[in-house]
Amino acid sequence: MNGAESLVSTLLRGGVNVSFANPGTSEMHYVAALDKIEGMRCVLCLFEGVATGAADGYARMAEKPAATLLHLGPGLANGIANLHNAKKARSSVVNIVGDHAIHHLKHNAPLTSDIIGLAKPVSAWVKAATTSRTVGQYGAEAIAAAGTPPGQVATLILPADTAWNEDGVVGILPKISAPEQVGDVVIENAARFIGEDNSTLILLGADALKEAPLQTVAKIKAKTGVSVMAEGMNARIQRGAGRLSVDRIPYPVPQALEMLSNFRQVLLVGASEPVGFFAYPHLPSQLTPKGCHIKTLASPEQDCLVALEALADALDANHVQPELQCLDKPQKPQGPITIDTIAATIGALLPENAIVVDESITTGRNFFPYTSGAHPHDWLQNCGGSIGLGLPMAIGAAVACPDRKVICLESDGSGMYCPQALWTQAREGLDITTLIFANRSYNILVGELAGVGAGTPGPTATDMLSLNRPVIDWVGFAKSLGVEATRVEDSHDLCQAFEHAIDVDGPSLVEVVF
Amino acid sequence: MNGAESLVSTLLRGGVNVSFANPGTSEMHYVAALDKIEGMRCVLCLFEGVATGAADGYARMAEKPAATLLHLGPGLANGIANLHNAKKARSSVVNIVGDHAIHHLKHNAPLTSDIIGLAKPVSAWVKAATTSRTVGQYGAEAIAAAGTPPGQVATLILPADTAWNEDGVVGILPKISAPEQVGDVVIENAARFIGEDNSTLILLGADALKEAPLQTVAKIKAKTGVSVMAEGMNARIQRGAGRLSVDRIPYPVPQALEMLSNFRQVLLVGASEPVGFFAYPHLPSQLTPKGCHIKTLASPEQDCLVALEALADALDANHVQPELQCLDKPQKPQGPITIDTIAATIGALLPENAIVVDESITTGRNFFPYTSGAHPHDWLQNCGGSIGLGLPMAIGAAVACPDRKVICLESDGSGMYCPQALWTQAREGLDITTLIFANRSYNILVGELAGVGAGTPGPTATDMLSLNRPVIDWVGFAKSLGVEATRVEDSHDLCQAFEHAIDVDGPSLVEVVF
Repeated sequence: MNGAESLVSTLLRGGVNVSFANPGTSEMHYVAALDKIEGMRCVLCLFEGVATGAADGYARMAEKPAATLLHLGPGLANGIANLHNAKKARSSVVNIVGDHAIHHLKHNAPLTSDIIGLAKPVSAWVKAATTSRTVGQYGAEAIAAAGTPPGQVATLILPADTAWNEDGVVGILPKISAPEQVGDVVIENAARFIGEDNSTLILLGADALKEAPLQTVAKIKAKTGVSVMAEGMNARIQRGAGRLSVDRIPYPVPQALEMLSNFRQVLLVGASEPVGFFAYPHLPSQLTPKGCHIKTLASPEQDCLVALEALADALDANHVQPELQCLDKPQKPQGPITIDTIAATIGALLPENAIVVDESITTGRNFFPYTSGAHPHDWLQNCGGSIGLGLPMAIGAAVACPDRKVICLESDGSGMYCPQALWTQAREGLDITTLIFANRSYNILVGELAGVGAGTPGPTATDMLSLNRPVIDWVGFAKSLGVEATRVEDSHDLCQAFEHAIDVDGPSLVEVVF
Repeated sequence: MNGAESLVSTLLRGGVNVSFANPGTSEMHYVAALDKIEGMRCVLCLFEGVATGAADGYARMAEKPAATLLHLGPGLANGIANLHNAKKARSSVVNIVGDHAIHHLKHNAPLTSDIIGLAKPVSAWVKAATTSRTVGQYGAEAIAAAGTPPGQVATLILPADTAWNEDGVVGILPKISAPEQVGDVVIENAARFIGEDNSTLILLGADALKEAPLQTVAKIKAKTGVSVMAEGMNARIQRGAGRLSVDRIPYPVPQALEMLSNFRQVLLVGASEPVGFFAYPHLPSQLTPKGCHIKTLASPEQDCLVALEALADALDANHVQPELQCLDKPQKPQGPITIDTIAATIGALLPENAIVVDESITTGRNFFPYTSGAHPHDWLQNCGGSIGLGLPMAIGAAVACPDRKVICLESDGSGMYCPQALWTQAREGLDITTLIFANRSYNILVGELAGVGAGTPGPTATDMLSLNRPVIDWVGFAKSLGVEATRVEDSHDLCQAFEHAIDVDGPSLVEVVF
């Protein structure tokens, strides 16, 4: 057994049985090992950002890591933006990066680079294998590191000779630590905190936004009258009919300040103190009002569900009837396409148990109210702000949950960062419906230019924000990569196209021009 | 004057008047400054790898740096692969990366990351601006660092508040050091070295492959009978009729070993010791035969031209008539498309003074012999091995040399790494003809799998190397991004399509299926 074979066997033993791959020469033994050892689904991506973004989406839905397979430093570099997003979403990823054979490194061949240096900013764990005998064990450590709650990026560098040499040994998985439990004193303090002031906000993030903790929060809310919100960007919210409806902190800082202005207390559960996505001159970074008391019930690394259950207990809320969202879908809209009719279309037609991948930027700022009464679904956002995650993340979600429909809400600006993802969607026949919101501009920046006080845009600035010279033909683009596509320009056609796409199995794309 | 305005003024004062940009919120003041200060051409790219690859191509042809404009750590990350290529090509790049306002960093907003850590592996110089008063001077230092011979990547990080605050001061350009001169003793030793053995190879790299040094090498060759070759991957070779015809060291290691096997001496001029692009089991990393004497006349950082002229002097070669390539174009081929008929087509039709951007991978391994007698031209290769440079580099070359035709030779695998470049080519109306060699596989890896001894590919390995499920429709793809395109499947049609594309101004693409 060579090193590559020991690594693949170790991954399978550790439950990692999906690889999102863009291999090169130095990874050929790993690829060959996939034919010798059964059980690894290998998904080819034409660009590494697709592989890492898919791994993020997979981890969020499968609740376990996929492996990537990237080609040396530059291959890793192409995947870093979406690893950044995965890190911020606390997704579990076993990030495997090939390298030159160790004896070849000193010769500084063209592809030689500082892989460890590149990996560190996005990885909680980085190690480079040194021998074929130990690479299996390093793989086991990587799986454990990736699985450390709530989830981390672990990067294993695989020099070619550690893959091709014999003497491979399958690694033994170290015990993965359970999430830390919140202490009794913290629970008691939190219960007292909520009782102290009737203008308290429970701010939820990370795992606290899954169905079970949300049911518990709903009881606490019903009992105490606290308000409940989610962070601005969330890895996965389970929402829709039968669940607690939770608003997000809005992206525009003035709106967020306004929304939070009346809270004198905030209790954080899996969330961080709310801050602006960007800084603006003359606006604060912190979004809570001056003097607001902020307390943490549970950090993202801690067991939010158990903490919330204990809090509910302490507040005697366990037998309270919570107020949950009933099924309440908007009417299918008519007439011209606007950001509101788009939102209504999604709310009206979202199929049961859908996975929504949301990178809709400005178009999607109002999607939540229109979809809170839709059929139950999972809603996945970009937690790192590096655009280009949507199309790849949809791949990962679809691979993790082949029986669920994935709806990808993508902007035309951000969609162009990893558009190669469409080819993999076609290749794997993934059940993904993508809506591209073609406003033909970096619309967010039009607002930001004003927001930062940079004045009225002149011709150069205007040009830097516009995507209409030339107009991108998303239908032709998708078709050229094997994905069926259609263009709509009014609400009736949008509804019809979206319904059709949902009915049909496999990938399709609707270019929504407005 | 705010910090952004002082930086833009500093760049213009330092001769940097082209920006390849993908800006975001934190860069809005920089963008606004471009409207207040005349003289900067700002080229919008839909993905940061396009911006950095374009900057590489621009530097090679303009012989001065362009600026980039990237959005925080993830924007930099997307540009790293092509910055790696630029670093290996020793291209001069002023790499500008926006960041959060300094006071915002401690809040760890979603886009916060270790930008310095990401920049270091690809940058010779990295600094983060600390105030609006000093950002201009930092910009001047960045220009000087980028211009340090033979050329470097200098990364300037620009926190938003250092751009938006007032008190900006235009920077004063430090003196840029000239390339180091080679000492007399080295010249004398090199002259003696060449005289000692009649099996000597002069191996050229970096600036030694421009027309003037090549003319001098031609005289040395005529006088002494030395052999002359170029490194495997070169930033820019000036070749074609009227110049010294120079072969490259081939990519496949067995072929390279064979080609170098009879040399007992190698004199390096702007080149490094030849090593394999990758390591292979049972093959050496070093390509020169055992016992071969290797001596350096001039490193890439030194003045290769002056050193060669002094060497010619020492060898009394200055008045020798060199043997230069005469105009000797292949016939236009007929019949099925093969890698040889493609090569012949290029050699037959290459227009005078063309700039050839070559990322043709396996298809292009035999392009040199067919094109050595073509009209004079510049030939640019990928020096870092991170594929995806071709289409962006063509942008930079076309912006630098608007009066010259750019011919981009691109593979279907590598073309998919930064395909967004086509949109910028259309937007800017750049005179670029792209040939896409659609063999519909990662063909190089088919050979590499055997080369590394990974055995006969099984179904998974075969699947990882194939790009035909689905077939990429490059014609539809290019058209969707605004670039005219056509598909050819025999040599006659290829010649006709290539001739037409060369005749017409502006970007076009030919998908060459074979």
